[in-house]
Amino acid sequence: MRTIAWREENGGFIQLLDQRRLPESATQLDVTSNEELINAIQNLAVRGAPALGVAGALGVALIAHRAESESWSKDDIERAISQLREARPTAVNLAWGVDLAKGQFTNGPAAVLKLALKLAEDDAKSCREMGRIGADYLIEKLGKKKLRILTHCNTGALATTEWGTALGVVRELHSRKLIEEVFADETRPLLQGSRLTAWELAQAGIPYRILPDGAAASALFSGLIDAVLIGADRIARNGDSANKIGSLSVAVAASQVAVPFLVVAPESTVDRNIESGEHIEIEFRSDSEVTTFAGVNIAPAGSETYNPAFDVTPARYITAVVTDKKVYRVKDGEAL
Amino acid sequence: MRTIAWREENGGFIQLLDQRRLPESATQLDVTSNEELINAIQNLAVRGAPALGVAGALGVALIAHRAESESWSKDDIERAISQLREARPTAVNLAWGVDLAKGQFTNGPAAVLKLALKLAEDDAKSCREMGRIGADYLIEKLGKKKLRILTHCNTGALATTEWGTALGVVRELHSRKLIEEVFADETRPLLQGSRLTAWELAQAGIPYRILPDGAAASALFSGLIDAVLIGADRIARNGDSANKIGSLSVAVAASQVAVPFLVVAPESTVDRNIESGEHIEIEFRSDSEVTTFAGVNIAPAGSETYNPAFDVTPARYITAVVTDKKVYRVKDGEAL
Repeated sequence: MRTIAWREENGGFIQLLDQRRLPESATQLDVTSNEELINAIQNLAVRGAPALGVAGALGVALIAHRAESESWSKDDIERAISQLREARPTAVNLAWGVDLAKGQFTNGPAAVLKLALKLAEDDAKSCREMGRIGADYLIEKLGKKKLRILTHCNTGALATTEWGTALGVVRELHSRKLIEEVFADETRPLLQGSRLTAWELAQAGIPYRILPDGAAASALFSGLIDAVLIGADRIARNGDSANKIGSLSVAVAASQVAVPFLVVAPESTVDRNIESGEHIEIEFRSDSEVTTFAGVNIAPAGSETYNPAFDVTPARYITAVVTDKKVYRVKDGEAL
Repeated sequence: MRTIAWREENGGFIQLLDQRRLPESATQLDVTSNEELINAIQNLAVRGAPALGVAGALGVALIAHRAESESWSKDDIERAISQLREARPTAVNLAWGVDLAKGQFTNGPAAVLKLALKLAEDDAKSCREMGRIGADYLIEKLGKKKLRILTHCNTGALATTEWGTALGVVRELHSRKLIEEVFADETRPLLQGSRLTAWELAQAGIPYRILPDGAAASALFSGLIDAVLIGADRIARNGDSANKIGSLSVAVAASQVAVPFLVVAPESTVDRNIESGEHIEIEFRSDSEVTTFAGVNIAPAGSETYNPAFDVTPARYITAVVTDKKVYRVKDGEAL
């Protein structure tokens, strides 16, 4: 399954699996303009740090194609690229993908597209690599036995080009017959866990249970979890990791019962320009994500919310960061 | 506002504010039989440990009235009382209220009712007392300044006869002009925070924000919270406290940033028959509470869940238990 792809028809466009409509239906969304892509990113039709990196690069390819056929000015091009780059602030991959593709701009649309498609290929490969490295590390740490893994948000094929980061490790363990069960946090407010992760796990035939985010500590303290695997949107040099809101809570609970807590993300998610997590900008999202559901009010009209899209887990709660290159034991002070 | 009351008409019945329909509408539910009351308790039309204590006692009064007018056998009476007593297992107050009222059974329906109404009065008084004791304790601990309080689930008038336990402390602080803002966890899966607590706070004119349960750790680690106040369904002698699922997660996060975490509950919630929390039976509820919302599937069909209604917070994470009698500093080893 591919989350995001380039189509050659009609002068070229991007095709996304529209994640807002899962698990009800797996619908493709055709993105033919930069405005549509920014909208798709901000409304989470496409999401997940690695997928956003590819989306950013393909977006620059889309801009390059349109700029050529419609004779855009240099200012138009600059503005479009910069709007795309800033569509969401927390995940470093979006800016990373945009910047890499932009570097090919002077070589023409075909070169930009070639770079973007290479990033997609590299992402797919890097996910397989993370899967192997993470699975090997867990087996080394916990022994070769069936594992009960807790995860938060969606870090699977839907968050990447294919396979997944944290969920890629789960897929790899499952292929080695080493998964007993996955506990998938539902991940409020947008339910990426129950909508997306559960859908991927069901498709892959991996046993799972969905739990309210608040029940993760109960599962951990009840001895039901062998390891926690999550993704990341940005990782600082010291290992502090920004990830979907609710990750911090799981990390803190895991630390209390000495359950390994692993962050799994490609090297492109590591932001070596920042020393620690305090420099990570956190995106805040609308009240209505929390106060309404499926068109129903679930709170008094006019209620305000505290709705950060991400939180930052300090490195001291993270047993290790697993990338496509190696395992960083950040809790023990290993920097990235 | 009274959550639960006795009406004399038609041979006597119980009137409840139907909490399933809030915040959309404040509808009264007339409960005229033991089966209806058990159904109302299991479906959370009435909920909250102190309210369940009063509901249990009024339920025995209802049984006593029906048993007299319909000439029930002794077995019928015993069976009805025992079914009511076991309608929900975790909150100790339900069994406590049933047992106290049952003790008056031989004195006739009027005596049972009198006892039940006295429990309701006592509950209202005990909430005011907890409010004062808790507010005084927080002022002593944090100084006389406007406080930002985080709370979980609903512990207000709706969970008691009136006023509330943890939310009673908030009401008392507000009456002393010492509340800056309340952060109300939405409390998945049944959203008692966004539906009920936010509704009560809005009615009382107390500033509040609703947050996803997973965002509580972020608020705590970001320095936005001065103290956490929650209720309890059962408290062991050592201070281990069962409360709504998600409480443990907040307690653990609060402990990491040294934010006081207080459990506020009447003495009737203390179960001195059990030494520690490991003896507390936890109720598990249906998958559909997690996998559907407002009739919409939010997970793949057939998904299983991990859906405990409560978790147990070990005493080591609880700064103090505040009852209507005193403050127990359980983290420092003070037993109840």
